[in-house]
Amino acid sequence: MQFQTMSYWQLGGRNIDNQKCDFMVRSSMLSRVQNLRLVDLYRHGSESIWVTKGTNVYDITEWVPSHPGGEVILRAAGGSIDPYWKIFSIHQKQDVYDILEQYLIGTIDPKDLVDGQVPSEHVPNPFASDPERDPRLRVHSERPCNAETPVSELGTFITPNDVFYVRNHLWVPDLGKPEDYSLTVELYDGTEKKYTLQDLRDKFHEHTITATLQCSGNRRSHMTANARMTNGLQWEVGAIGNAEWTGVRLRDVLADAGHAVDDVPKEVKHVQFSAVEAYGASIPIAKAADRFGDVLLAYKMNGEALPPDHGFPLRVLVPGNVAARSVKWVNKITLSDEESPSQWQRRDYKCFGPNEGPNPNWDAARSIQEMPVQSAITSLRQVSSHSPQARKWMHVYGLEEDSVLLEGYSFSGGGREIVRVDISADDGRSWHQAELLEAETKGSKAWAWRRWRFIIPNSQAGKVFVVKAVDEAYNTQPDSYEPHFNFRGNLTSGWQRVENKPIPS
Amino acid sequence: MQFQTMSYWQLGGRNIDNQKCDFMVRSSMLSRVQNLRLVDLYRHGSESIWVTKGTNVYDITEWVPSHPGGEVILRAAGGSIDPYWKIFSIHQKQDVYDILEQYLIGTIDPKDLVDGQVPSEHVPNPFASDPERDPRLRVHSERPCNAETPVSELGTFITPNDVFYVRNHLWVPDLGKPEDYSLTVELYDGTEKKYTLQDLRDKFHEHTITATLQCSGNRRSHMTANARMTNGLQWEVGAIGNAEWTGVRLRDVLADAGHAVDDVPKEVKHVQFSAVEAYGASIPIAKAADRFGDVLLAYKMNGEALPPDHGFPLRVLVPGNVAARSVKWVNKITLSDEESPSQWQRRDYKCFGPNEGPNPNWDAARSIQEMPVQSAITSLRQVSSHSPQARKWMHVYGLEEDSVLLEGYSFSGGGREIVRVDISADDGRSWHQAELLEAETKGSKAWAWRRWRFIIPNSQAGKVFVVKAVDEAYNTQPDSYEPHFNFRGNLTSGWQRVENKPIPS
Repeated sequence: MQFQTMSYWQLGGRNIDNQKCDFMVRSSMLSRVQNLRLVDLYRHGSESIWVTKGTNVYDITEWVPSHPGGEVILRAAGGSIDPYWKIFSIHQKQDVYDILEQYLIGTIDPKDLVDGQVPSEHVPNPFASDPERDPRLRVHSERPCNAETPVSELGTFITPNDVFYVRNHLWVPDLGKPEDYSLTVELYDGTEKKYTLQDLRDKFHEHTITATLQCSGNRRSHMTANARMTNGLQWEVGAIGNAEWTGVRLRDVLADAGHAVDDVPKEVKHVQFSAVEAYGASIPIAKAADRFGDVLLAYKMNGEALPPDHGFPLRVLVPGNVAARSVKWVNKITLSDEESPSQWQRRDYKCFGPNEGPNPNWDAARSIQEMPVQSAITSLRQVSSHSPQARKWMHVYGLEEDSVLLEGYSFSGGGREIVRVDISADDGRSWHQAELLEAETKGSKAWAWRRWRFIIPNSQAGKVFVVKAVDEAYNTQPDSYEPHFNFRGNLTSGWQRVENKPIPS
Repeated sequence: MQFQTMSYWQLGGRNIDNQKCDFMVRSSMLSRVQNLRLVDLYRHGSESIWVTKGTNVYDITEWVPSHPGGEVILRAAGGSIDPYWKIFSIHQKQDVYDILEQYLIGTIDPKDLVDGQVPSEHVPNPFASDPERDPRLRVHSERPCNAETPVSELGTFITPNDVFYVRNHLWVPDLGKPEDYSLTVELYDGTEKKYTLQDLRDKFHEHTITATLQCSGNRRSHMTANARMTNGLQWEVGAIGNAEWTGVRLRDVLADAGHAVDDVPKEVKHVQFSAVEAYGASIPIAKAADRFGDVLLAYKMNGEALPPDHGFPLRVLVPGNVAARSVKWVNKITLSDEESPSQWQRRDYKCFGPNEGPNPNWDAARSIQEMPVQSAITSLRQVSSHSPQARKWMHVYGLEEDSVLLEGYSFSGGGREIVRVDISADDGRSWHQAELLEAETKGSKAWAWRRWRFIIPNSQAGKVFVVKAVDEAYNTQPDSYEPHFNFRGNLTSGWQRVENKPIPS
């Protein structure tokens, strides 16, 4: 319990003892809470910040500068914090409730309540700016939106924007006008430089790279199915996609802002990214400064302006690293000796041993950056002479026998190229090599997935197909799940097995 | 057969059709072979090169410039090629015999033979310069010397020079005086620059890195034992070692020689290394030019001059890559659009699928460079209260119960740090984390192995211990061997299992 208490504070680096002391002084001073009207909540402008939780009213003005999550707290000003605490589940702990209670100033007058509750129009909807989404996406959660690409749309080298998987931790921010948008770069010595979107386009060379983004939870459902229940969204094989990303190099922007990219001072170890909606993450400076690292501040996806779900107007694109580091809606970059203090850097995106969890020593594990080798089967179909459609495919592939055609992807982190994909048609007893499909890619390393195809006569196909890939460092995927289990279900990469029948899309 | 024929030729890039044509013309001209004396073999100096194979004599003068293996062939001048063909087994094929036969000029006079054979003093010993070796090394082959470090000597972070594993492909060259030694750097345009050892020390900054070298065959015997027989030396866990290497950066030398290391021309893709004794290999230019790649031209090992077996006076040290690229006795560096033409680059150090071999499409597989994640148990001992010695250890580790103490190493390629080592004390059913031991290292990345320690009470220890490691990209080791089998037995990394009893050293 002590650890959990500390962790909330550590995120913001505050001193809990001082806060507890304030609380005691305050509690003794506050004799009786007031009866307040809803209209009072909005009266104070930026001078004082009042919020509700349930039917209680709190004046959190003095708390705001100490809030570990930063200024995102202002989103709740004049309204209810309930929807935000639901999203930021870190608040659902006694010590956080205790902090809030010290700022209690009153309760909502029963005249303003409906069925004993604050009416819904006074409860903000943080997701009001979320866009319409393509109905083909397989939705795991609506708010925040988490939706994967169905296997029917995973068959192309480039994943179209409309069906590219969406992994939002919060809401899609309402950004106002793009011309008002600016990015602040803060160097290690605290000096800041601001760039508008136009500045970025005018001052820097434009670069395009082909890069696969993969959520660390991709294939998590396979770990749950083959080992034990895991915490998190139960993604199938579609929390991954490949696109062409266009923007300017982070390296160039850092250099322009005054950072010595080729002779990095020892103290600078991480580049932190903060986003408009409160998400944050970081990457090691070595990746950001690497001239072959290809980290972009991207404003285009597959030749179009970034869609709202993918970071419009500006996102970070860290090829080869877990997608959680490719921060969307980025508006602040900070050079630091520390990783981002966000929960997404210091907690959620880590792996632990099969025996650990759900309350591990979070600091003991490394934040996920580069990803391990991965592969999946996205299509399995009969190519038989029994139908005209299938006969066409027999002709295309020059087949003489009725066959099974498998297709899928393979991918590895760190720009490590896939060198081999092994397929078993008899549940892992014997192996064949899939054909690795050629594709034109842009960028300094192998940032894009490798599509593969495998055809085998029906007469040689058993009941279960298995896929595993090998990357250029000859890393391969583990055979099983339980010995590689982690309670967060991150980076699931055990061999995928599929039955010899069409995959439902 | 056609493929095998071509492969010999492709190594040298020659045109076999012309050669065959020569052969037919020659054969028709050569009416009768002569009877020759041994003393005649030496008569010709550099004007014509005669060699014997068995009791036949060949004038190979015209062949020398076409020899795919280069000038190493001159080592056999005036003597028998038999010992060399035994080492360079690529010659043991009909098409190579055919080539030789076209240069037949005679047979050794029976007066010079002993028991029908050329006497042994006329058969050269290529290994005459090989040094004495430490008797603690476990020898797999004497000539060339291949010997691993016994587990009894694998317990320290730095492996002492005397017991560092030796992996020689050929003989240890006789180099003459160090002051006569020079290194030639040939740029892509053919211009050359020469450096003496003194030049290297005088012109360039000295750097020291801590780096682990591992043979791609390390743990090959485990693949043989757990899957099927593999081709190659049956190394146990000791074809690996860790040392401090001192020298100058290859990057700096290339820059000095006129190569644009930060703006590499597109055509330059590989840096080829050739050694005095005929060994050769190459690495990608990206690794050589990387300012954090730490590739050295090393002249010291653990603070002393390189021992003869480890490349005296100069070797390449490519941290993070398979040791076969850290060419010993290097005297020529060539920038090229191609990999080294040597068999060690284009054949031996590759992996294929479990279903492939022993005559695969060699060109289809990637040369091994960076290595996958690896771990091994090097020590297992009882720490019980029954002996004064063991009681001491119980005190040191603060143990209250009789326990089992395991130690070992973990390592990954590409400078990827080890982040976790999992140990099972019940043959893989449940897992614990080993303690990762701290050690001071030098260099830009995690080039050194990570030692680990694990202690478990006897009451909780089963019959079989298992180890597996995880690196910073969360790559892990495959569970088994057969599905990851490759006929060369390279990069064996299935989980090591050891019985719960002391490991024989």
